[in-house]
Amino acid sequence: MREITIFSGSAHRALAEEVCARLNIALCPSTIRRFGNDCLYVQLNANCRERDVFIVQPLVPPVQEHLMEVLLMLDAARDASARRVTAVIPYYAYARSDKKDAPRISIAGRLVADLLMTAGASRVLTMALHAPQAHGFFRVPVDHLNALNIICAHFKDRDLTNTVVVSPDLGNAKSASHLARLLNLPVAAGSKRRIDDEHVVIDSIVGDVSGKDVILLDDEIANGGTVLEMLRLLRERQVGGIAVACTHGLFTGAAIERLAAQPDVLEVVTTNTVPLTPAKIAALPQLRVLSVAPLLAEAIQRIHDGESISSLFDQ
Amino acid sequence: MREITIFSGSAHRALAEEVCARLNIALCPSTIRRFGNDCLYVQLNANCRERDVFIVQPLVPPVQEHLMEVLLMLDAARDASARRVTAVIPYYAYARSDKKDAPRISIAGRLVADLLMTAGASRVLTMALHAPQAHGFFRVPVDHLNALNIICAHFKDRDLTNTVVVSPDLGNAKSASHLARLLNLPVAAGSKRRIDDEHVVIDSIVGDVSGKDVILLDDEIANGGTVLEMLRLLRERQVGGIAVACTHGLFTGAAIERLAAQPDVLEVVTTNTVPLTPAKIAALPQLRVLSVAPLLAEAIQRIHDGESISSLFDQ
Amino acid sequence: MREITIFSGSAHRALAEEVCARLNIALCPSTIRRFGNDCLYVQLNANCRERDVFIVQPLVPPVQEHLMEVLLMLDAARDASARRVTAVIPYYAYARSDKKDAPRISIAGRLVADLLMTAGASRVLTMALHAPQAHGFFRVPVDHLNALNIICAHFKDRDLTNTVVVSPDLGNAKSASHLARLLNLPVAAGSKRRIDDEHVVIDSIVGDVSGKDVILLDDEIANGGTVLEMLRLLRERQVGGIAVACTHGLFTGAAIERLAAQPDVLEVVTTNTVPLTPAKIAALPQLRVLSVAPLLAEAIQRIHDGESISSLFDQ
Amino acid sequence: MREITIFSGSAHRALAEEVCARLNIALCPSTIRRFGNDCLYVQLNANCRERDVFIVQPLVPPVQEHLMEVLLMLDAARDASARRVTAVIPYYAYARSDKKDAPRISIAGRLVADLLMTAGASRVLTMALHAPQAHGFFRVPVDHLNALNIICAHFKDRDLTNTVVVSPDLGNAKSASHLARLLNLPVAAGSKRRIDDEHVVIDSIVGDVSGKDVILLDDEIANGGTVLEMLRLLRERQVGGIAVACTHGLFTGAAIERLAAQPDVLEVVTTNTVPLTPAKIAALPQLRVLSVAPLLAEAIQRIHDGESISSLFDQ
Amino acid sequence: MREITIFSGSAHRALAEEVCARLNIALCPSTIRRFGNDCLYVQLNANCRERDVFIVQPLVPPVQEHLMEVLLMLDAARDASARRVTAVIPYYAYARSDKKDAPRISIAGRLVADLLMTAGASRVLTMALHAPQAHGFFRVPVDHLNALNIICAHFKDRDLTNTVVVSPDLGNAKSASHLARLLNLPVAAGSKRRIDDEHVVIDSIVGDVSGKDVILLDDEIANGGTVLEMLRLLRERQVGGIAVACTHGLFTGAAIERLAAQPDVLEVVTTNTVPLTPAKIAALPQLRVLSVAPLLAEAIQRIHDGESISSLFDQ
Amino acid sequence: MREITIFSGSAHRALAEEVCARLNIALCPSTIRRFGNDCLYVQLNANCRERDVFIVQPLVPPVQEHLMEVLLMLDAARDASARRVTAVIPYYAYARSDKKDAPRISIAGRLVADLLMTAGASRVLTMALHAPQAHGFFRVPVDHLNALNIICAHFKDRDLTNTVVVSPDLGNAKSASHLARLLNLPVAAGSKRRIDDEHVVIDSIVGDVSGKDVILLDDEIANGGTVLEMLRLLRERQVGGIAVACTHGLFTGAAIERLAAQPDVLEVVTTNTVPLTPAKIAALPQLRVLSVAPLLAEAIQRIHDGESISSLFDQ
Repeated sequence: MREITIFSGSAHRALAEEVCARLNIALCPSTIRRFGNDCLYVQLNANCRERDVFIVQPLVPPVQEHLMEVLLMLDAARDASARRVTAVIPYYAYARSDKKDAPRISIAGRLVADLLMTAGASRVLTMALHAPQAHGFFRVPVDHLNALNIICAHFKDRDLTNTVVVSPDLGNAKSASHLARLLNLPVAAGSKRRIDDEHVVIDSIVGDVSGKDVILLDDEIANGGTVLEMLRLLRERQVGGIAVACTHGLFTGAAIERLAAQPDVLEVVTTNTVPLTPAKIAALPQLRVLSVAPLLAEAIQRIHDGESISSLFDQ
Repeated sequence: MREITIFSGSAHRALAEEVCARLNIALCPSTIRRFGNDCLYVQLNANCRERDVFIVQPLVPPVQEHLMEVLLMLDAARDASARRVTAVIPYYAYARSDKKDAPRISIAGRLVADLLMTAGASRVLTMALHAPQAHGFFRVPVDHLNALNIICAHFKDRDLTNTVVVSPDLGNAKSASHLARLLNLPVAAGSKRRIDDEHVVIDSIVGDVSGKDVILLDDEIANGGTVLEMLRLLRERQVGGIAVACTHGLFTGAAIERLAAQPDVLEVVTTNTVPLTPAKIAALPQLRVLSVAPLLAEAIQRIHDGESISSLFDQ
Repeated sequence: MREITIFSGSAHRALAEEVCARLNIALCPSTIRRFGNDCLYVQLNANCRERDVFIVQPLVPPVQEHLMEVLLMLDAARDASARRVTAVIPYYAYARSDKKDAPRISIAGRLVADLLMTAGASRVLTMALHAPQAHGFFRVPVDHLNALNIICAHFKDRDLTNTVVVSPDLGNAKSASHLARLLNLPVAAGSKRRIDDEHVVIDSIVGDVSGKDVILLDDEIANGGTVLEMLRLLRERQVGGIAVACTHGLFTGAAIERLAAQPDVLEVVTTNTVPLTPAKIAALPQLRVLSVAPLLAEAIQRIHDGESISSLFDQ
Repeated sequence: MREITIFSGSAHRALAEEVCARLNIALCPSTIRRFGNDCLYVQLNANCRERDVFIVQPLVPPVQEHLMEVLLMLDAARDASARRVTAVIPYYAYARSDKKDAPRISIAGRLVADLLMTAGASRVLTMALHAPQAHGFFRVPVDHLNALNIICAHFKDRDLTNTVVVSPDLGNAKSASHLARLLNLPVAAGSKRRIDDEHVVIDSIVGDVSGKDVILLDDEIANGGTVLEMLRLLRERQVGGIAVACTHGLFTGAAIERLAAQPDVLEVVTTNTVPLTPAKIAALPQLRVLSVAPLLAEAIQRIHDGESISSLFDQ
Repeated sequence: MREITIFSGSAHRALAEEVCARLNIALCPSTIRRFGNDCLYVQLNANCRERDVFIVQPLVPPVQEHLMEVLLMLDAARDASARRVTAVIPYYAYARSDKKDAPRISIAGRLVADLLMTAGASRVLTMALHAPQAHGFFRVPVDHLNALNIICAHFKDRDLTNTVVVSPDLGNAKSASHLARLLNLPVAAGSKRRIDDEHVVIDSIVGDVSGKDVILLDDEIANGGTVLEMLRLLRERQVGGIAVACTHGLFTGAAIERLAAQPDVLEVVTTNTVPLTPAKIAALPQLRVLSVAPLLAEAIQRIHDGESISSLFDQ
Repeated sequence: MREITIFSGSAHRALAEEVCARLNIALCPSTIRRFGNDCLYVQLNANCRERDVFIVQPLVPPVQEHLMEVLLMLDAARDASARRVTAVIPYYAYARSDKKDAPRISIAGRLVADLLMTAGASRVLTMALHAPQAHGFFRVPVDHLNALNIICAHFKDRDLTNTVVVSPDLGNAKSASHLARLLNLPVAAGSKRRIDDEHVVIDSIVGDVSGKDVILLDDEIANGGTVLEMLRLLRERQVGGIAVACTHGLFTGAAIERLAAQPDVLEVVTTNTVPLTPAKIAALPQLRVLSVAPLLAEAIQRIHDGESISSLFDQ
């Protein structure tokens, strides 16, 4: 197979460029336009024939635009005779729609997997799916990385003697359990109660947190509502210093402002699977952004070379 | 098969309701929401089991949002055990991307057909595709209606003795030829010249138009650029009164204002495959909107009853 | 569609017969033989043409034999011109293999879904999948029932004032949370620690259980190892009376003997998704088996009649 | 991928041999026989394993025989473990059936695309499809060449100061517009009128042709009826010298004799996508046959080498 | 499902009409034309929507023409919204190409099955496949009838006390064994020897035939070469009267003349799965043609009504 | 493509190791475990990325366990990004279920082919299918070897002047005819008679065997019932010495004991497509086991190198 050929949609060009820099190759140019009737038009401006093509596009807002872009790019690459086309989706937003918890809805995480395959993805490289079962929604090979080693590396040289890892959701505490194991720490979790069909509150914390420092870990932070609610409960239990951590830092709505207003949140740690504007970064001084580009670049190189990447998965 | 069950996406609820009124049934409710991370969530709020489900959604701006909505609705209906799911797409916006006229692009009209089928469309009902060949992009049965009979009916009782039907594009003059035949009129067409890769100008009119009244017909009008350019050429040839007609009246950008500023355009005729805001309608007094709802309703009834609908196609 | 036609594999004929009795129809005969070379041979002994065929087969041990049986029966029914073939799999054993937590393994829950669809399943009726995401492994409509309402009904008339629902696994406590909500009780969960690649121990309980009565709920009980380990931890915390509950009571290996030897286990509650031998039932006097046949029968009737079955899901 | 391996069906062995000569390789032998019951039998007589196989077969009369041959050859090559099988169809006859202009017909251009893919074509190399939209009928990569550059090269060194390019069909004048642009000439087109369901006449010419020399261009010429009718109309307008040009020169029925009988047709230009018998060539002294073999050979070499072939498309 | 709707290709309209007469319905009209470039055009001239459509077309010479016809008709019926489309192929000529007995050939019986399914066949009704394994080439339901009961009925009232059923091929004597069982007669078979790759001779008869009357049974008779060779061997063994019987009587080449010239062949029995010209019938006075139309009509009725047709298979 | 990578299921590890030894490579390790609920778990313990993976697994008893193992291994290899995955199935047990000889059964040989393809087999290497038509059940390339050359080599240096090859089944005597041709010997066959639906007896031998030595050849021997019955008939005809030969020696039930008890069976010849326990080998002193490992190794090497393997097929 011919050389690695990387294109980027418009979702997060900086990440694609950082990956290319690590691989010592140039990001290939592409044209993305919009017709008068709002339809998108995409052209790949480098030869794809027999190449090992990767298209980098996290599904960040506006999600539907970015999804359609990557579908058009996959289809273009396939019809342009690429040998293999890998969809690199560091943030697979629709993974949260992974089950049928109400009648007559779509399991949209599965539907989007189908759409990507239909458009021409011959494999997928993604990170930190909301539930690991979503891997099974694909019929093409998936390399599913996670950022817990990166987050672990950030915390592991500190004094963590009095620290607990807290998950906001007892029913989905896999990642927090995992990070706690990596850091050799105990774990606790919020317990939700459903008020009615639309509303859920976290009304208790299962596990011991009083007087401890806290690493509050969630897969993703959107408008920050869940984090704020957990902070309220943690304070009631008189915890010490709090670090908030997540893989996918969307920080939509008033999330930045709300987090900046919490004096006991000493640090907000996230990765760059989702792009952050300079304004957002400036507005939240406690923010630390860890780069996943080295991990993605290493994975792409190994996929191309046919080397094992299971050693890239956390242990 | 159980009864007709119609849902509408958010693209054009008024059209769906008009169709339902013609069929004497109620439009079924659905919930369309947006998660904090911008992902869409759709729930169909009526039983679909064994029903003959129709989902009405023209692909009008914002196109990507409306496309994802209809994909989610199709998937939900299929998994909810609908006997048959028909995507009713009166305006199939991506049909204009129907060929590969540049390297490494997607034939997006085909890709979107694939997406609709993947999501669960067991048939499609559409109107006035940009090229009739797009019908062949689908592997499921398609009923492809056109609005030329409706437009013909609008014009046919007038005095058309000195009238010519004009197409802006010599290379794609099928609809104008067709309408001319229905009205028993001659036809003329603009001839384009490509300046460079990005720019095309219409630099002549093939056929005789001088001194005649004109019906200028295009499939769709987006920002109106092509129409304005044709008007300039027609005036050079000193035509009489001008009627502008199209099936899909998008009127994006400054189209409404620009058309309203043409004193010799006596009438702008379109259909309601695309929704128009009251403000747009008010700003263009010459506008006449013809409804396709009776045609769609009749087609849906016949599809359900297994009756021939070829008689609904124009002759 | 013609009448409901139910066949049973050899996995659990008693359940199929109970379902048929509720529906007031006769179970259709089938022949299952084995050739000299150990290959299976299945013949359906009732006309399938245009019928609404259901094949009942929980994937209980010997799993591979029962899986191949149901695949042969699905293929036979499809080729015999059934209008629709529903695989009724009350216990979908491979659902536990739902993610890729080690390199170069199969997500077998997804593979078995593919096999069922390949063999001819046009829909699936199943219960209490290990993770609800497994629903998305199927490309055909799935009705996914759960038995929590049945288990809830069993407990709800008791004095539960001092009771807590306990899950053995903090990382997968959805069902316990759900049952706790139905019974308006608090929830607690065991926290696992991985010793090495092969071994996991539960080394703490997150949440308050001391002095309380316990309903220990797991999806399935195989050899009972996890339950026994939880019992040890619960006793250390000096809980009161213990009820052990699960949907899928496999009770393999020494499970029955080990549970019978726990004097503080007042009750072991399960359903009949998995067949139990009279010997097993006799050896565990605290055992209470709740029947899912009424639920399955009602679901089958509604599937056939095209009526909503979302009301059969628990609220 | 191993070396280029070219087989020819019986449709046009001379073209395949000319392509091979350009590539400096030998055409691989194959056996094509007919059983007593008229079924075809094809054997490929060279190793296909891991090879980059190309099968050359324009769909010329007898079309159905040649179509079945190429389907058998594709299937044989795939099952013989070819790495990739490209159907080289310089004349894709069924492309004219590209839309549904009557009820209950097949869009046969799409059906034949499906048949080729079903039989094992992993890509397609074709020329001058009747409508460019037919590209979208395929789900495998298509390289769609055209012969306009070759035809242009034939004309471009002449004195064309008083020349017009004429298309017989106003509704499908893309190729004529294109050639006119390449030669910097004006364009005109015949306008058809439908007499009844079966009959169409060309009753006028849109655009200025009087006194001019004419290049009358059509995609293909079968029995020559359309050309003859255009000649009649052109003579009424007293044009000068006439050159008739087409990509696909079938010349069926009395086409050769009828064209030979037109004294003002100074030249009939075609390519060798369709084989011509020596008798036909002898009977039409004005005939000039341009070879597409160099273009096909260059495309095959680039497909094999993974080099861009968009530069082979006309500009 | 709506009413039975039967169309016929041009292969054997008389058989289709006989079937319709048995079913007391009219054969639906269809138009089959040929374009100037030899492409076929088919239009179904009766409404197909929601109908149970059957298309009758044995694959008799010219096989490729008739195959393409039926593919076009299947595609047209599917796109015309037929509820179900059954390909009725009483003579499936390509079934003889059912294995890979030489390298780099197509298993054409499988390929044609794929083509029929691709074109839209939702089921198949066929007769007397060369090998019963060919049934498995289809992924859609197949009803595979045979004519042995009909042939048996023809012979069973005679005095068969000294009769043997003879197959020309020891390696494929299933049908002869079957007929012998139905008539309670012994069986014998010719044993072939391969001279070289192209030639096979029958050089002995396995089993006792001397002095007996013979029913020589083959699946199909094309040019009659095998039958003639068997007759020579049988005469060497001084058999009595000979009846030649087959299901598919193609009688191509000089078959009729050669059979008419055998004085000891008292009878040639075949069915009408293949049409015979009046000239052929007149030239072979010993010919008896048994009709399969009642069997096909009964099968079609039962398929439509959802009644078992296994009782139509011979016992 | 990267190097040959061979895994073995648990069916016949000795054969896989012998093949690897011939290829001078190491058999790659794999882990096969069983969960408490009897589900299988397979892990491939060597990197598969871009490798040419072969999985060796004859479908010997317990067939269902071995089938599920190979399905899990195929799925794991595909998802682990193998370039190509070949299922090496030297004994394809379900090939005997290759036709529909009773209503409402599965053609299980076809179903298992579908399952293997669904699980990820991109090609198949198999031997001595019960009927060669089963090759056509696969849509992926199949290399179908046979062992007749190996069996021929075993016999060919003997004095065979008075020997006949005998098939137990007149209706399926292809292999015996083939071996007879290779050894230049006459052939005879048993003729079956059906007693009722369940029972078949061989009641005569077609062809001359009296006083001759016999090679009794069958594709496979399971419990030996057919062989024993043939021996009885042969003795009635006073044959000389008897050799029993087969490709697939299953020897289930009492086959070994029964064969050991036949004094006139001088030799029992089989291959190692099926593993034999030392106890079985010890109990039947006349047994001769011929190895197919050299043939499989040569085929694997040629598949990997893209060299023709038709020369490996017997002539």
